[in-house]
Amino acid sequence: MQEVFYFGAGPAALPRPVLEKIRHELLDYRDTGLSILELPHRSDAFFEIRDQATQLLRELLQIPEEFAVLFMHGGATSQFSALPLNFLGPGRSADYLCTGFWSSRACAEAARLAEVRKIQALCEGESLSIAPAQEWDLDPQATYLHCCDNETIQGIAFPGVPEDLKSALVCDMTSSLLMHPVEVDKYALIYASTQKNLGIAGLCVVILRKDLLERVNEPVPRLYDYRRYVRQDSVVNTPPVFAIYVLREVLDWVRKEGGLPVLHQRSLTRSAQLYRVLDESALYENRVAPEFRSSINIPFAIRDTGALEDFLEQAGQHQLRGLRGHRSAGGVRVSLYNAMPDAGIARLLEFLSDFEARQRRT
Amino acid sequence: MQEVFYFGAGPAALPRPVLEKIRHELLDYRDTGLSILELPHRSDAFFEIRDQATQLLRELLQIPEEFAVLFMHGGATSQFSALPLNFLGPGRSADYLCTGFWSSRACAEAARLAEVRKIQALCEGESLSIAPAQEWDLDPQATYLHCCDNETIQGIAFPGVPEDLKSALVCDMTSSLLMHPVEVDKYALIYASTQKNLGIAGLCVVILRKDLLERVNEPVPRLYDYRRYVRQDSVVNTPPVFAIYVLREVLDWVRKEGGLPVLHQRSLTRSAQLYRVLDESALYENRVAPEFRSSINIPFAIRDTGALEDFLEQAGQHQLRGLRGHRSAGGVRVSLYNAMPDAGIARLLEFLSDFEARQRRT
Repeated sequence: MQEVFYFGAGPAALPRPVLEKIRHELLDYRDTGLSILELPHRSDAFFEIRDQATQLLRELLQIPEEFAVLFMHGGATSQFSALPLNFLGPGRSADYLCTGFWSSRACAEAARLAEVRKIQALCEGESLSIAPAQEWDLDPQATYLHCCDNETIQGIAFPGVPEDLKSALVCDMTSSLLMHPVEVDKYALIYASTQKNLGIAGLCVVILRKDLLERVNEPVPRLYDYRRYVRQDSVVNTPPVFAIYVLREVLDWVRKEGGLPVLHQRSLTRSAQLYRVLDESALYENRVAPEFRSSINIPFAIRDTGALEDFLEQAGQHQLRGLRGHRSAGGVRVSLYNAMPDAGIARLLEFLSDFEARQRRT
Repeated sequence: MQEVFYFGAGPAALPRPVLEKIRHELLDYRDTGLSILELPHRSDAFFEIRDQATQLLRELLQIPEEFAVLFMHGGATSQFSALPLNFLGPGRSADYLCTGFWSSRACAEAARLAEVRKIQALCEGESLSIAPAQEWDLDPQATYLHCCDNETIQGIAFPGVPEDLKSALVCDMTSSLLMHPVEVDKYALIYASTQKNLGIAGLCVVILRKDLLERVNEPVPRLYDYRRYVRQDSVVNTPPVFAIYVLREVLDWVRKEGGLPVLHQRSLTRSAQLYRVLDESALYENRVAPEFRSSINIPFAIRDTGALEDFLEQAGQHQLRGLRGHRSAGGVRVSLYNAMPDAGIARLLEFLSDFEARQRRT
């Protein structure tokens, strides 16, 4: 069978060498006589995994000393709740910059638990764009400003942190962490669940400036309390050992690939190739204004709307999978995470051209 | 190398056939062309895994129709918080029956978040025991009564639900679920994290009587809200796909082994063999009164206290691992979960006798 290439938005494809290493170590983790699935969370072998994962993240992202790296349960959604539970309350509200589906969802959850201000910054005209920073109407008293670095459903990228931003910036980087270098010290807190570029579902990486801990409320539910994770080095209860192990393996692969500058360049090149095909096409249409286009998740409509099911079926015959758009958006979505091999994007580009040519003939 | 037998309290050993099946399916899950680690959570393949896991749990535990089965993030500790967040508040308190470390920890977390009454039922005299039910001093107005079915650190088993109990009983069965039949309808809610008898860390199984949902507070953090899990069939956000897959495989193995009556009998036989060796020994000492002894986690002291490190070292040379007692208790602890093969308990019993004989000679 032809190799399958999976373009799903997450859980996403893992690098093949990582999968093979996991398989190789599955029955006996490095001569412990135990499977990695059985490894105790208070063993030296696990502490080594956790510490190496932390160290690799610190190196790859050049995380400054004053930030802590935490491994928390439950994915990014856990942080939608943990943020207001830790930091908001009487007299303390936050601003939420809404640029698409996920930032709006984070805002909605915070609004259930505390007082927040929703700043609608997604502009839906001819094309999709984000309102310029001077129009954001920020509250100078806000405890933090929340944003999303990359909206996977709209395919919109945050255009970068404004130079003169005064707010403590909290950023959901679930889909973009490890795809580009990050100036970590421009942020107060960064979080990302791991099922896209960092491994498997059920884990969330949090990078937070330690001085924020002084502002944490009492009480916060145990598994949402940032102070406990810092104090107990992410072993607040039994952590998801296997997910942290997969994270370490993925980080090691990222390092061997050349780190974030190399992966970022690869991502820009690949997405530019795809946007070129879309822009030159009479059949495919991406609606995002060029300066806000995501290089990670690229949604497009098929102008001949009746052709969508044919497109997906024929793509499937070419072993190009996971291309159906999010149920709220329809159409097609291509997710180009780090693990996608060159051969995958090449086969996709060829298929896009061939499909359009066939449509013209019929 | 001699086969390793792992007696750790959790994360615990998995059945060897389950590990081999996971390894076999790791690179290509049942001709999907995807690894199980890449499987999307909104795919038919995942829904099948979730539904089969649910169905197997329903069959094995004979769960009545009026109960829902939920798969939640974060292990049992998540439930320590979720219970008060969902059900307690102004005018609604709960009773917590404390019979050891874990029930006390559940109580402490609930007490941080709501009003609860702690009922100290662990009696520490000559031997450890649980106070009889008529001494519990329950609040008839309590929203629920929380208990722990098996205390892994003290090695104490809950003696069964009192016949005339009126309270809505909530039970932490983290270490005992799947080790004995359960009369589910005697409980209002049962929960168990999966890293002992059900699979790997990062997941919690919750079995709750659906009429309880009418009493849920507003707002509850999204990933702690039982109503959402029922409504969305445990896909509230990206669930821990791999942990649910491992759960399904373990449940399938339990079914093939003959189900809970068979595993329960096996557990009783094995633990009785071990207690016999301990009771006949002049060196080893288990302090739990016989009628409260756990058949699952069996802690004991070595009377010649200087011999503990020798014991653990020599056990390690016989590939008997994970025997060190919990850091709060010291001594030795033997955990006899379902996955332990007969050969493991046989080698342990032989070692216990041989070690004692050697000690007598020196």
